[in-house]
Amino acid sequence: MRDILDAVATGEVSPAEAEAELRGYARSGAGRFDAAREARTGIPEAILSEGKTPEETAEMTVTAVETTGSALVTRADDEAAAACRQRLAEEFPDADIERDGRAHTLVVHAPSYEPPALDATVTVVTAGTSDVAAASEAAVVADEMGATVEFIDDVGVAGIARLFDRLDEIRAADALVVAAGREGALPTVTAGLVDVPLIGLPVSTGYGHGGDGEAALSGMIQSCTPITVVNIDAGFTAGAQAGLIARSVSAARAEP
Amino acid sequence: MRDILDAVATGEVSPAEAEAELRGYARSGAGRFDAAREARTGIPEAILSEGKTPEETAEMTVTAVETTGSALVTRADDEAAAACRQRLAEEFPDADIERDGRAHTLVVHAPSYEPPALDATVTVVTAGTSDVAAASEAAVVADEMGATVEFIDDVGVAGIARLFDRLDEIRAADALVVAAGREGALPTVTAGLVDVPLIGLPVSTGYGHGGDGEAALSGMIQSCTPITVVNIDAGFTAGAQAGLIARSVSAARAEP
Amino acid sequence: MRDILDAVATGEVSPAEAEAELRGYARSGAGRFDAAREARTGIPEAILSEGKTPEETAEMTVTAVETTGSALVTRADDEAAAACRQRLAEEFPDADIERDGRAHTLVVHAPSYEPPALDATVTVVTAGTSDVAAASEAAVVADEMGATVEFIDDVGVAGIARLFDRLDEIRAADALVVAAGREGALPTVTAGLVDVPLIGLPVSTGYGHGGDGEAALSGMIQSCTPITVVNIDAGFTAGAQAGLIARSVSAARAEP
Amino acid sequence: MRDILDAVATGEVSPAEAEAELRGYARSGAGRFDAAREARTGIPEAILSEGKTPEETAEMTVTAVETTGSALVTRADDEAAAACRQRLAEEFPDADIERDGRAHTLVVHAPSYEPPALDATVTVVTAGTSDVAAASEAAVVADEMGATVEFIDDVGVAGIARLFDRLDEIRAADALVVAAGREGALPTVTAGLVDVPLIGLPVSTGYGHGGDGEAALSGMIQSCTPITVVNIDAGFTAGAQAGLIARSVSAARAEP
Amino acid sequence: MRDILDAVATGEVSPAEAEAELRGYARSGAGRFDAAREARTGIPEAILSEGKTPEETAEMTVTAVETTGSALVTRADDEAAAACRQRLAEEFPDADIERDGRAHTLVVHAPSYEPPALDATVTVVTAGTSDVAAASEAAVVADEMGATVEFIDDVGVAGIARLFDRLDEIRAADALVVAAGREGALPTVTAGLVDVPLIGLPVSTGYGHGGDGEAALSGMIQSCTPITVVNIDAGFTAGAQAGLIARSVSAARAEP
Amino acid sequence: MRDILDAVATGEVSPAEAEAELRGYARSGAGRFDAAREARTGIPEAILSEGKTPEETAEMTVTAVETTGSALVTRADDEAAAACRQRLAEEFPDADIERDGRAHTLVVHAPSYEPPALDATVTVVTAGTSDVAAASEAAVVADEMGATVEFIDDVGVAGIARLFDRLDEIRAADALVVAAGREGALPTVTAGLVDVPLIGLPVSTGYGHGGDGEAALSGMIQSCTPITVVNIDAGFTAGAQAGLIARSVSAARAEP
Amino acid sequence: MRDILDAVATGEVSPAEAEAELRGYARSGAGRFDAAREARTGIPEAILSEGKTPEETAEMTVTAVETTGSALVTRADDEAAAACRQRLAEEFPDADIERDGRAHTLVVHAPSYEPPALDATVTVVTAGTSDVAAASEAAVVADEMGATVEFIDDVGVAGIARLFDRLDEIRAADALVVAAGREGALPTVTAGLVDVPLIGLPVSTGYGHGGDGEAALSGMIQSCTPITVVNIDAGFTAGAQAGLIARSVSAARAEP
Amino acid sequence: MRDILDAVATGEVSPAEAEAELRGYARSGAGRFDAAREARTGIPEAILSEGKTPEETAEMTVTAVETTGSALVTRADDEAAAACRQRLAEEFPDADIERDGRAHTLVVHAPSYEPPALDATVTVVTAGTSDVAAASEAAVVADEMGATVEFIDDVGVAGIARLFDRLDEIRAADALVVAAGREGALPTVTAGLVDVPLIGLPVSTGYGHGGDGEAALSGMIQSCTPITVVNIDAGFTAGAQAGLIARSVSAARAEP
Repeated sequence: MRDILDAVATGEVSPAEAEAELRGYARSGAGRFDAAREARTGIPEAILSEGKTPEETAEMTVTAVETTGSALVTRADDEAAAACRQRLAEEFPDADIERDGRAHTLVVHAPSYEPPALDATVTVVTAGTSDVAAASEAAVVADEMGATVEFIDDVGVAGIARLFDRLDEIRAADALVVAAGREGALPTVTAGLVDVPLIGLPVSTGYGHGGDGEAALSGMIQSCTPITVVNIDAGFTAGAQAGLIARSVSAARAEP
Repeated sequence: MRDILDAVATGEVSPAEAEAELRGYARSGAGRFDAAREARTGIPEAILSEGKTPEETAEMTVTAVETTGSALVTRADDEAAAACRQRLAEEFPDADIERDGRAHTLVVHAPSYEPPALDATVTVVTAGTSDVAAASEAAVVADEMGATVEFIDDVGVAGIARLFDRLDEIRAADALVVAAGREGALPTVTAGLVDVPLIGLPVSTGYGHGGDGEAALSGMIQSCTPITVVNIDAGFTAGAQAGLIARSVSAARAEP
Repeated sequence: MRDILDAVATGEVSPAEAEAELRGYARSGAGRFDAAREARTGIPEAILSEGKTPEETAEMTVTAVETTGSALVTRADDEAAAACRQRLAEEFPDADIERDGRAHTLVVHAPSYEPPALDATVTVVTAGTSDVAAASEAAVVADEMGATVEFIDDVGVAGIARLFDRLDEIRAADALVVAAGREGALPTVTAGLVDVPLIGLPVSTGYGHGGDGEAALSGMIQSCTPITVVNIDAGFTAGAQAGLIARSVSAARAEP
Repeated sequence: MRDILDAVATGEVSPAEAEAELRGYARSGAGRFDAAREARTGIPEAILSEGKTPEETAEMTVTAVETTGSALVTRADDEAAAACRQRLAEEFPDADIERDGRAHTLVVHAPSYEPPALDATVTVVTAGTSDVAAASEAAVVADEMGATVEFIDDVGVAGIARLFDRLDEIRAADALVVAAGREGALPTVTAGLVDVPLIGLPVSTGYGHGGDGEAALSGMIQSCTPITVVNIDAGFTAGAQAGLIARSVSAARAEP
Repeated sequence: MRDILDAVATGEVSPAEAEAELRGYARSGAGRFDAAREARTGIPEAILSEGKTPEETAEMTVTAVETTGSALVTRADDEAAAACRQRLAEEFPDADIERDGRAHTLVVHAPSYEPPALDATVTVVTAGTSDVAAASEAAVVADEMGATVEFIDDVGVAGIARLFDRLDEIRAADALVVAAGREGALPTVTAGLVDVPLIGLPVSTGYGHGGDGEAALSGMIQSCTPITVVNIDAGFTAGAQAGLIARSVSAARAEP
Repeated sequence: MRDILDAVATGEVSPAEAEAELRGYARSGAGRFDAAREARTGIPEAILSEGKTPEETAEMTVTAVETTGSALVTRADDEAAAACRQRLAEEFPDADIERDGRAHTLVVHAPSYEPPALDATVTVVTAGTSDVAAASEAAVVADEMGATVEFIDDVGVAGIARLFDRLDEIRAADALVVAAGREGALPTVTAGLVDVPLIGLPVSTGYGHGGDGEAALSGMIQSCTPITVVNIDAGFTAGAQAGLIARSVSAARAEP
Repeated sequence: MRDILDAVATGEVSPAEAEAELRGYARSGAGRFDAAREARTGIPEAILSEGKTPEETAEMTVTAVETTGSALVTRADDEAAAACRQRLAEEFPDADIERDGRAHTLVVHAPSYEPPALDATVTVVTAGTSDVAAASEAAVVADEMGATVEFIDDVGVAGIARLFDRLDEIRAADALVVAAGREGALPTVTAGLVDVPLIGLPVSTGYGHGGDGEAALSGMIQSCTPITVVNIDAGFTAGAQAGLIARSVSAARAEP
Repeated sequence: MRDILDAVATGEVSPAEAEAELRGYARSGAGRFDAAREARTGIPEAILSEGKTPEETAEMTVTAVETTGSALVTRADDEAAAACRQRLAEEFPDADIERDGRAHTLVVHAPSYEPPALDATVTVVTAGTSDVAAASEAAVVADEMGATVEFIDDVGVAGIARLFDRLDEIRAADALVVAAGREGALPTVTAGLVDVPLIGLPVSTGYGHGGDGEAALSGMIQSCTPITVVNIDAGFTAGAQAGLIARSVSAARAEP
């Protein structure tokens, strides 16, 4: 700030220019909305399709590509995905569109967009097939942030031997997202076997008392091995924080 | 009932006698209170010391020994145990008194009392040292019901290898009680490795969200491997039902 | 393990073979997935139709029959059941298919499959007609595990005399599953009258405060007579643990 | 109102007198505070000792006796009761003081006080000894309202035969209060056997999930036989409403 | 019982006859199911249409009329009501059918049925129009039990003057059911103004925190004037207990 | 900001001064901590004594008086109040100290302090004596903010006529705080009778289900007449917002 | 009242007239229902369309216009709005109809209706686009009460700089409604920056633990800066209380 | 494993030696207990003093130092700390003991112990002084894991400018732990301004609805900017996971 003010004092910068600059600084994180979010927090701004009409989702997707060159749409059903494809075909016929049906995501890259590339790995682990949707959402966002993403599924504690067979791969990660529903024990068991930052992702399976993921969440929160946790089905959040860890590690690797 | 009525018709039994008999039958479970409970349900009537003065506990203990030849006192602190010993020293100087400080129990056998002996094993497993009180209560009641009781402690999932080291012992049980607090994952993991009836016993460790055993309870209730569950810290209940299973198995073994 | 290693030392077994064998041992419980679960835990692997498309259910059913010779499908509506029948008609035209409409189950046995047969009885008791679905699911799984299954329905505590009329039958069981919704009092009352292992199965009837089975669950968990409990509507879990008790008793009966 | 206004019109009543009268009518329930409550609602105003110092309780007790000739103190420990006795000895040496140690109540009648007497019976039933405090509070308030009060204790459902032995007495009541803790099943079972208005009184026994009376409350609220319910440990409320029923029946009996 | 046994002793009664009699006594409440419920508890057995197909409801309605001469169907939508009318037109063309669209009930009386008639009044009070469904259900069951039923609606506390205008009518009741949703304050306010037994009926209006009737229920349970409470929307329960009070008062009036 | 920058450009203000000014502006609320909070939000910074040692409370009180000329201590027991008095006697022997024992507050004014004076009234209403602590805390903070404060107590809905007697006084307020525990119905009833902004203050009375103020909170949140609400026992919050309303009204009155 | 009684005494007013007058006074708030509510509480009576058929909503709308000259319909979907328009076209062809699609409201003014006009501003602030429905409902009701309404949207704390850009506008309000979902932090942050009465409006966004607005509600209730709160999505309540504050300020401004 | 088996085949390794080796591998995580935990998970094994006697804590502390050369005691009050010092003075007179009174921790290093040193920073941020205990616990564990730890306190959202003043320091961290109680908004606001992995640590301040940290936890779980979360007051967990991130970053920095 002092530099700008010195420049104003010397006349190098006009008061009007200084005001723009200083306000810009004051709000450095916000700037022009969408682009700024990613620049400020390192996490791409996602378009949550759930609760929007297919048309609204498509409209926001086009806007995102216009502004930032890319778009990440989450919780998009087939109808919303189709609406996006149609609008994109008109507006950005050359854009690269990747639909992940399990994750219910749509990732769009304009030809000019240069996606980030990190020298670090996020590994996503699931207890069973019903954890795939939330876990895949985590994988997509980490991938979009540039991490190398590995996916290890169906290693739940009901048949614990499956986990041991994959331990070397799991230990090789720079950050782990471990998804589980029902009683949600897999993150606890895994964290007792590895020395990698680990994010528990509770999944909304289960019924009756503690159903809809509440038992999994409270179990992970009470885990006797220290782990961090995100909300039930919050794949985006888990992937984004794992992506931030990968980003830090990658930057450290790149230091001379 | 028909036999008694036939006997009344033939005069073998007087109507007054028959009434006593029939009422006794009708209320076969209640009859003389304490003795009947055990006869009817196979589970000893316990004296819950918690919420009673030491004197009240001691008084009920003496009554139990008078009526049934034995007494099982639970959740008894040292003061209550001392009061019991004092009263018993006066009334039943020859009684055998066994105090389990970890389980907070006191077991009393009059010299004449012939404890049941079952040809079956109940194995009680704990995740960590803070589960010992509830688990020991389960062990004491199964022991009092006549089962051979094995105790395997500190095999929690934070260091899963400890569990594998003891698997053969665990598999040898006729019934399992598996105690765990915090996230309560041990019963789930164990049940995925054995083919023995297994009762999950959640323990009131943990704090914050899902603390006081609620996370453990809801996790066990949601277990992805089928197990049965009892209330938080309900060692008596877990031990009693495990004891009933041991009783059935023992009876089956004794069949010609 | 020592045997294998001795064999390697003597050259009887090649290192590669030993590795396969040892890894198999290390993961003895998992092996080839479906078959192993039942071998390891004594409980058949069920296909939960709820949350799957009819086609997915049918596909997994065929796979299960291929792998293990049998399949147990739960929470299958009529559409799912029809899809299974159609696929099975193509793949296993000789398979024996049993549909239980009340339990919403489908049980499939290939001609070559030899179902287990236990010398022990599981008795399933219900308070009222709305408990039948969960109770029947318990009955089907116990039956599939080989137990003799008795079903006593509509003996709820609102008309307690109905329970007394059936007490002798109830007392004859080797393991009891007692299902009840609303206030869920039947397992407590029953457990005060019998000396048989008893599993309370809360059912998701009721509305308002404590509705959807929560009052029944917490009531059973607080039962003043010791019982074990499973989750709301968890008929599979109750039947599986009752089946394990029957299995133990049957094995004891078979001991010389 | 018209009568008063007519009287004003004819000059029989002065406007000032009429205003007093009409305001009195408008606030007929409040009038002079303590006396009015009982006149208006038929339920004596009680002094809740819990949360007050012994001196405060004693002070309010003296005020109550001064104003209404009687006092009903609830949840009074021994210290509070002693403070009351001391103040009453000074102020009302001839008052009749009845202390119920189980109910933690103190009832005071000045010599001039004429207690109500109803020709109707309130019967208070308990499941076990830990229900006695709340149940006794209900009994004391019904007694103070003039009902004949019967007390039947320890007939809980763990030994259901005890209940059947007392059914005739229970059926003879004009209103029932049935107290139970833990799973709280006794009111449901009782209501299925009698045709008398029945109020369930949940008691704060039990621990863990559904403890502190919550399981009992939700069980009674879900009761499959229709009953009404009061809050946990709300003996005063249960006794007061049972007393109102007795009052109505007694008045009906007294009709010519 | 002694009488029967004396008769057996003297040969007046055969043992077989005595057994039937005694068993009948032992199960006096159950006898033949439907009829017995009402005889034993004074409350008609209702057919809950909710959760049944129209055909099932119609089938049970016909059975009820066959057995007891009357039927009370609750929570019946128009489709269920039509199915009942159709079946009844075939089986009991002369039956009297009364449909209450607000209460969602259907009451059927065979020509031979003599409904009870009580000399007592149940008054049902509502806070607003959204309470009408639950309140009407209460009114219908009290009416079916023979009480004179008065209905006073829309006197909620948001405009408290409306309540004062109807106080005389409310005070004239022998039993009150007061229904309210949202914050559920009406029963508390009313109970402070009358000396009649009062049952609070919380209604499932409201949204957000404490919605679906939970705020109303907990408010009534905490009421600073003593009232009894039933479950959310439990109009049947409220009406049945109010009907029992009316029955007792009516019987008292009929005493010579 | 432009003015400052213009001044820098013209040399009227040095860059260093401008930086201080601009940073000060940017953080106008924080500046020197305590003083700034009140300047920014209009609400005095309170010292919450609960959870602090008497010495810590006294220390912070002295600091507050040093910085702002006044101090407002809340939830101070007698010991904390004494510690404050002792320290203040040393440091500010001339300060004016006002202790409100019911509110558990201590208000300190240095001789130089000029308290605000508003031309507006905050009226605090309570349902009963147990609401006095929270209500008095609200009154103290509104008074400290300069409002004229009226206190109307014991007008709860159990005797609704008391409320009507005070309606004119209540209607004369510029802002209302209405405190109630148990079922918390008073704010709803009051809001239906007045056209003044009204803040409901739930109080932590009551026990059992919905106890500790939860029923009162959810009832006020569901109020069928629109009111705003604060947390249970949050007298400070209620008084502060009522004080802000009084401040706005007073400022409006002072407009020319 | 004395005046009327004096007039009766002098014969100026007949007793019948006086009765009408006095009863009218006694029920001054209720009188003829709809009109009286607004007169008494300053808040317009709204018609909640949710839970009503389009026809019922339209019918009540016509009645409201007939009685009071205006109508405010809330939570009305397009179908309900169309039904209202159709009925109004028949009955009040000249009425002014304003539909707010975001707020789901319909405001109707008969030509003769003179809407209130206040000299005060209510500013409604939202954290994001999903808060618009509830916030707009608040805006509509404050507008209908005559306040000048400003709307500032999308200034949530995820990009806090947006809030700072609008602070001057926010500070200029006479009353604030701040809407936020998810973690609901915006009202807390805003209240730390302004000295205006502020009402937090939690919105039912979010999923999993604390979803449906519960986290937002409890966060606002726990706010470390004092604010008042309304129920989740209770835009009407927030707008009505903000309107009352504006009304008080406007009246103060109008004082001579 | 293949290497060992090859060696057995060639006779280099005896079968007995191989068995030891392979078993050791199979249980690599457990081995000798305490040391292994840290080796396996990278997190030091802590001794939780809460719930233990001072003597027990001291005993376990000595054991830890004996086994691993260091000890980390958490939630140790002054009495426990004194007991540790006394025992350590006897057993390890040269050990370095560091007591953090705010964190309630005790860290012990034997002279021979070489603590890890990481080239990475963990920054712990607090909203206010009541968050210091939990935040300090996080700081101590991260420090013990070798991270450089920065501590920035009292930057809560009630005075948001304080946060902006420290943003540069916060952005410089490799991992952030942000602690907050009450409504817990600080982590959300912070995460919107930085691109560093961020762990929210809810603190058990607050009372009434959402008190004891539940509002803070659910708010962080619902955060509209992606963050991970740990249990209420779980400083150890937050610090351990932040430490693991620092460890990964440090290792990446050390890569050639």
